Amino acid sequence: MESRLSLDEVHGLAVSTLTALGASDDNADAIADTITAAERDECKSHGLFRLPGYSVALRNGRIDGRAVPEIHDLAPAVVQVDAKGGFAPLALRAGRAALIEKARGQGIAALPVVNSHHFAALWYEVEAVAEAGLVAFAFVNSRSFVAPAGGTKPLFGTNPMSFGWPRKGRPPMVFDQASSAIARGEMQIHLRDGKSIPEGWAIDADGNPTTDPAAGLGGAQLPFGGYKGSAIALMVELMASGLPRSHFGYEASAEDTGDGGPSKGGELMLAMDPSRFVADGDADASFDHAEGLFAQLLAQEGTRLPSDRRFEARKRTPDEGITIPKALHDEILAIRDGV
Amino acid sequence: MESRLSLDEVHGLAVSTLTALGASDDNADAIADTITAAERDECKSHGLFRLPGYSVALRNGRIDGRAVPEIHDLAPAVVQVDAKGGFAPLALRAGRAALIEKARGQGIAALPVVNSHHFAALWYEVEAVAEAGLVAFAFVNSRSFVAPAGGTKPLFGTNPMSFGWPRKGRPPMVFDQASSAIARGEMQIHLRDGKSIPEGWAIDADGNPTTDPAAGLGGAQLPFGGYKGSAIALMVELMASGLPRSHFGYEASAEDTGDGGPSKGGELMLAMDPSRFVADGDADASFDHAEGLFAQLLAQEGTRLPSDRRFEARKRTPDEGITIPKALHDEILAIRDGV
Repeated sequence: MESRLSLDEVHGLAVSTLTALGASDDNADAIADTITAAERDECKSHGLFRLPGYSVALRNGRIDGRAVPEIHDLAPAVVQVDAKGGFAPLALRAGRAALIEKARGQGIAALPVVNSHHFAALWYEVEAVAEAGLVAFAFVNSRSFVAPAGGTKPLFGTNPMSFGWPRKGRPPMVFDQASSAIARGEMQIHLRDGKSIPEGWAIDADGNPTTDPAAGLGGAQLPFGGYKGSAIALMVELMASGLPRSHFGYEASAEDTGDGGPSKGGELMLAMDPSRFVADGDADASFDHAEGLFAQLLAQEGTRLPSDRRFEARKRTPDEGITIPKALHDEILAIRDGV
Repeated sequence: MESRLSLDEVHGLAVSTLTALGASDDNADAIADTITAAERDECKSHGLFRLPGYSVALRNGRIDGRAVPEIHDLAPAVVQVDAKGGFAPLALRAGRAALIEKARGQGIAALPVVNSHHFAALWYEVEAVAEAGLVAFAFVNSRSFVAPAGGTKPLFGTNPMSFGWPRKGRPPMVFDQASSAIARGEMQIHLRDGKSIPEGWAIDADGNPTTDPAAGLGGAQLPFGGYKGSAIALMVELMASGLPRSHFGYEASAEDTGDGGPSKGGELMLAMDPSRFVADGDADASFDHAEGLFAQLLAQEGTRLPSDRRFEARKRTPDEGITIPKALHDEILAIRDGV
């Protein structure tokens, strides 16, 4: 049983649920934008699926839904956002303009975020910066879920890294990939749907390979690509919570209440202005040059650009709407209406 | 049959060979530093193994061994090095001080390199910047050797990315890993030594899996970690030769003469000053915080930090010296002495 919703209905449902639980209009709108974009692009694990998690953290007061982010100018090319114990979407929205302005002025700039809580749909943030003509990175760490290469216990978060490259006259090329073999949300969706998980996603609490999503969620996820993915998970930990000096995965886990809400943790974005990286200042020439690489890639049968599936979905969902399991829809309505 | 050399002898052999073939003292010294550091750290695929490749490109005049790199200030946080058709090591040495100064002044800075040729021992460059107390990245692309996920033909270079994090009172944590399942030098060493390669490293010219290093070198290498490694290879292409607008892998291949010398291509370094990423300006507190993460990692049996093997080697080789196959030693001496 599925419920079909228009994108406006998705946004409205998210806003009304979050505000019913005490979030400010600004926070609710910023979170709803992220959730709606995820549903629009069929990134289900960051869509309405996350609304109960946001809600529980609001209801139990762990996260301040009325937080007002503060911007601190730390250096000519560094602007910090202090999320003041609130959610990441509003903090990132608050810092975006300053990040873009600094990148244009200095050539490259960084946006460290502290005191925030996130479910990490990084591609949404990176795409917004890339739409402004800048090359962008985002790094975030979650609670400890992933064993380092050679180890058997969770240490790293699932630690996504997102990268975006602007394209003239079309959406930017953006990828957003966890350092784990699979996003944790996918593990949770497999558990919910009663499906086994492929080998290579996780080990159980004894360190043995498992295809049982419950055993994997209770054990440790594995990094993608063996020791190289593990090194990237470590890098993301250091970029997201080392440089901003926020909560590494194991620190976020130590403070976690197990409510299933967003992780406490740092986040870091970088933005680069291509016109400042070449002596002739001609960003269009750099973009044209990159189109040659994309064309070479797509000329090989069986390939695609990382963001193509999202952009295909985006062509359909504004007209067709999206579907979610009716059970999830009912759960959200019950949360919203305090049933 | 092996030859044993002290590190001083390694450096001297590299300098004397390169200058005999017409390299300037500065270029020879910068290349010899890289080769000696690789031998010191037992990164054999960037050690004396590469000297014949450097030599052939000098002898046939494809690369200017007397090039004098030029520094161009492109933005408050961006400094470009034009290698003027020469080798990367001297170009990177020339730009390093400006990159460090800009990172300290602006918080973050970038160093795009153009018109250079490299064998890409990135960890050496990243470590030098991290030794100055800065977090550092380096990206470089090579000629096309790696098939994109889903494809069967070489498009990306082996495209290493290196990342470094400073540590107080000890060498920085530095990793340097190809976006391919394995470094091309390792494929070449397997071929030289008559060893088969593991599945997953390469496909043959028809797109089929192969364990024959010759078939793999003639076909395409595979990215590490499937589509996620392929996305990272694409990101490295765009960072290394998209932003600096240099040669993507396929463009470098089109201009390549097949002499086995260093690839033409761009390179990009980033440097970040941790003291400028936190409101209290206390980089030491950020480094102490990260040591907690490293300690958690090393507390798990079977784990190590990415750079640990290199640093273990570094404790031994200054006293014990290093060994190379006698055939390689003889080949280098014959090149140097014009036999």
